[in-house]
Amino acid sequence: MPGVSRRRFLKGTAGAAGVASAGVLLAACENEPSDSGPNTEPLTEAAVAFDGEHQAGIDTPSQASLNLAGFNLKDGVDGRGVARLMRLWTEDARELTAGRNPLSSLEPEMVEWPANLTITCGFGERIFDIANPGVKPRWLHDIPTVPREQLQNEWGQTDLVLQICSDDPVMCAWALRHMTRAGMDYVKTAWLQQGFVNAYGSIPKGQTPRNLFGQVDGTVNPKSDEEYREQVFAADGSTSLVVRRIAMDLDDWERLDRASREVAVGRKLDDGAPLTGGDEFDAPDMNAKDEYGLPVIDKNSHMARAMPPADHPEQRFLRRPYNYTLPPAPGELSNAGLIFLAYQKDPDVQFTPVLERLMEADRLNEWTTHIGSSVYWIPPGTAAPGGSSQGGARGDTFWGETVLSGDRG
Amino acid sequence: MPGVSRRRFLKGTAGAAGVASAGVLLAACENEPSDSGPNTEPLTEAAVAFDGEHQAGIDTPSQASLNLAGFNLKDGVDGRGVARLMRLWTEDARELTAGRNPLSSLEPEMVEWPANLTITCGFGERIFDIANPGVKPRWLHDIPTVPREQLQNEWGQTDLVLQICSDDPVMCAWALRHMTRAGMDYVKTAWLQQGFVNAYGSIPKGQTPRNLFGQVDGTVNPKSDEEYREQVFAADGSTSLVVRRIAMDLDDWERLDRASREVAVGRKLDDGAPLTGGDEFDAPDMNAKDEYGLPVIDKNSHMARAMPPADHPEQRFLRRPYNYTLPPAPGELSNAGLIFLAYQKDPDVQFTPVLERLMEADRLNEWTTHIGSSVYWIPPGTAAPGGSSQGGARGDTFWGETVLSGDRG
Repeated sequence: MPGVSRRRFLKGTAGAAGVASAGVLLAACENEPSDSGPNTEPLTEAAVAFDGEHQAGIDTPSQASLNLAGFNLKDGVDGRGVARLMRLWTEDARELTAGRNPLSSLEPEMVEWPANLTITCGFGERIFDIANPGVKPRWLHDIPTVPREQLQNEWGQTDLVLQICSDDPVMCAWALRHMTRAGMDYVKTAWLQQGFVNAYGSIPKGQTPRNLFGQVDGTVNPKSDEEYREQVFAADGSTSLVVRRIAMDLDDWERLDRASREVAVGRKLDDGAPLTGGDEFDAPDMNAKDEYGLPVIDKNSHMARAMPPADHPEQRFLRRPYNYTLPPAPGELSNAGLIFLAYQKDPDVQFTPVLERLMEADRLNEWTTHIGSSVYWIPPGTAAPGGSSQGGARGDTFWGETVLSGDRG
Repeated sequence: MPGVSRRRFLKGTAGAAGVASAGVLLAACENEPSDSGPNTEPLTEAAVAFDGEHQAGIDTPSQASLNLAGFNLKDGVDGRGVARLMRLWTEDARELTAGRNPLSSLEPEMVEWPANLTITCGFGERIFDIANPGVKPRWLHDIPTVPREQLQNEWGQTDLVLQICSDDPVMCAWALRHMTRAGMDYVKTAWLQQGFVNAYGSIPKGQTPRNLFGQVDGTVNPKSDEEYREQVFAADGSTSLVVRRIAMDLDDWERLDRASREVAVGRKLDDGAPLTGGDEFDAPDMNAKDEYGLPVIDKNSHMARAMPPADHPEQRFLRRPYNYTLPPAPGELSNAGLIFLAYQKDPDVQFTPVLERLMEADRLNEWTTHIGSSVYWIPPGTAAPGGSSQGGARGDTFWGETVLSGDRG
């Protein structure tokens, strides 16, 4: 994490780490005056607290590498089996993210420097159906069909998801390897979405990362604890994850001149400022007209369509997008896009209205195609078993304990 | 580059950068006393000199991300076409690696922080055949068939290769994107091999990286300028690249206990030291016996088979391996391996005898399968056109100019 050594923090304060959650530290960091200097905090010292009110990997600054793995339950695995899996996965994730070797692993050398590793778990609808249907969130269902999407089954809904992120790609690969192996009696891999953003320290502090269209991506994200409480985390620390896989047609996009690209986005390419001026974080003036009386910001620009309308301020969520590139199909120049990860309390209220507005008329639609979609409930944070009451608001010692205990007895 | 800011160097010394080539700087750095502390050189300041006696990206410390792209010429492209492509590719690579925007690019924001970007070009046999058969190196042919390999055409020989490496995955993706687009009139992508090693600063200085078997990988690499001259660079700065794609069966490998893994490798897993003791860089004692009179280092261990015999000290080369992980096939836990990049003056003399010895009896063969193979001539380094005579030993201003000029007139 830029500018703050979580590991040093963890080591220095031991038991208190559970209380001062990742979110608190983060907010403190992000509220500091912006610093455009380089990152000099050694990555070898960087670790993210695992236990806390909510899971890590959500308000954690995006680490360079993503392995997002969708898993389906093997035949015959019931709610009790899921609980056993969650108990062992939680324990192993707690060890890996702290740079300790999980009990079942013979490879202590591979886990020494977690490099801000986070492992975040989500439940698909089916987990509730088999384990505790009575408490299934009402928003936990497929995102409604929207115009233009071309969803492919191979990137569809799964029973479980692990979002594994690290600033070291070897650590990221190893953590996926370990978790897959640890869960092999219960689940099989359905898909793996591998993504990347800028490396730790590779862009100046305070610089919003760019996607492969050259857009800064994440400008309007929540920053303060209060914004996270409003938009992302429920009172118990749970949230939701919507995964949209979005193919981006770089070849066509790059035929546009810069002015046309900026019209499509609604922002300047160089600094991400709204076309009506100011800097990246200034509000756009949607009523501004140019010398010919035309709107400066096109009503169908990506920014204009994505903005919450005045009467729906709740249409905000956390974007945690990752780029992907794959070998191009024969005859193509590229095969690239976004693994668009959206975290919010309630997708029906916060996410889907924005998606629908975008798919209806966003100028960027000409160069983007949604090819995958899935939705997960993200269990609250956890507390280490046997520890004090610090940690998850509900005292869960493993992911989803409260939900899965409904299947007991 | 750990511990040395190339960018600062480049900026500070301007025209002299061509003389003090990457290799000189590197050697200076690597000969320093080893420092186990963390890396604190800001990655935003890191750039690698493009022009020099040999191409960058060979003796450059391995950057975190690899895009290795194989290209085939489009129908009708002759030697003159290749020369035109090389002229524009060299120019664009020179700009990108310095953090400057190539002339043809509308995306200056994407290239600002190269993060040790290197772009290294290689010629397959066919380039000589069509442009200048008389100067084709005698070793430029397919690696001879060896036992156990299961080569797949999709990872086979191509006309050209670009090895693109950066410590920032976005920069690495963007550089590939730009180069592919810039070359689209001349070449089409045949394959793309995407790999990774530890992130910049994610392991302590002096730590040899590990592959996904947990082995330290690269211990015996050349380090001094003299070793590079002996093993890697011809007098004109050219060299060769052998690419072997090696699938690794993690699932079976991890069924072994640690002692069995160490026997197979011939080294200790924790620190990479030979099983006969000392540290990672100490020579193994191949004659040592244990208390039962058995060899401490198995004669068929990977280390023993890879070592040059006493009468063939020339069987050494530069290993620059990258890990890969891909989505597992249905029912599998993993799909991982190595993109094994070997640089040497003469593969017939240095590489192939080692490969043959390994494929005959290396214990590691039980868990590895060679699935791809290709060989390239790596043109010497270049000098910026219009500059002084600094740079490439032959004064080439673009990759392979001397070879391709044979087709002129």
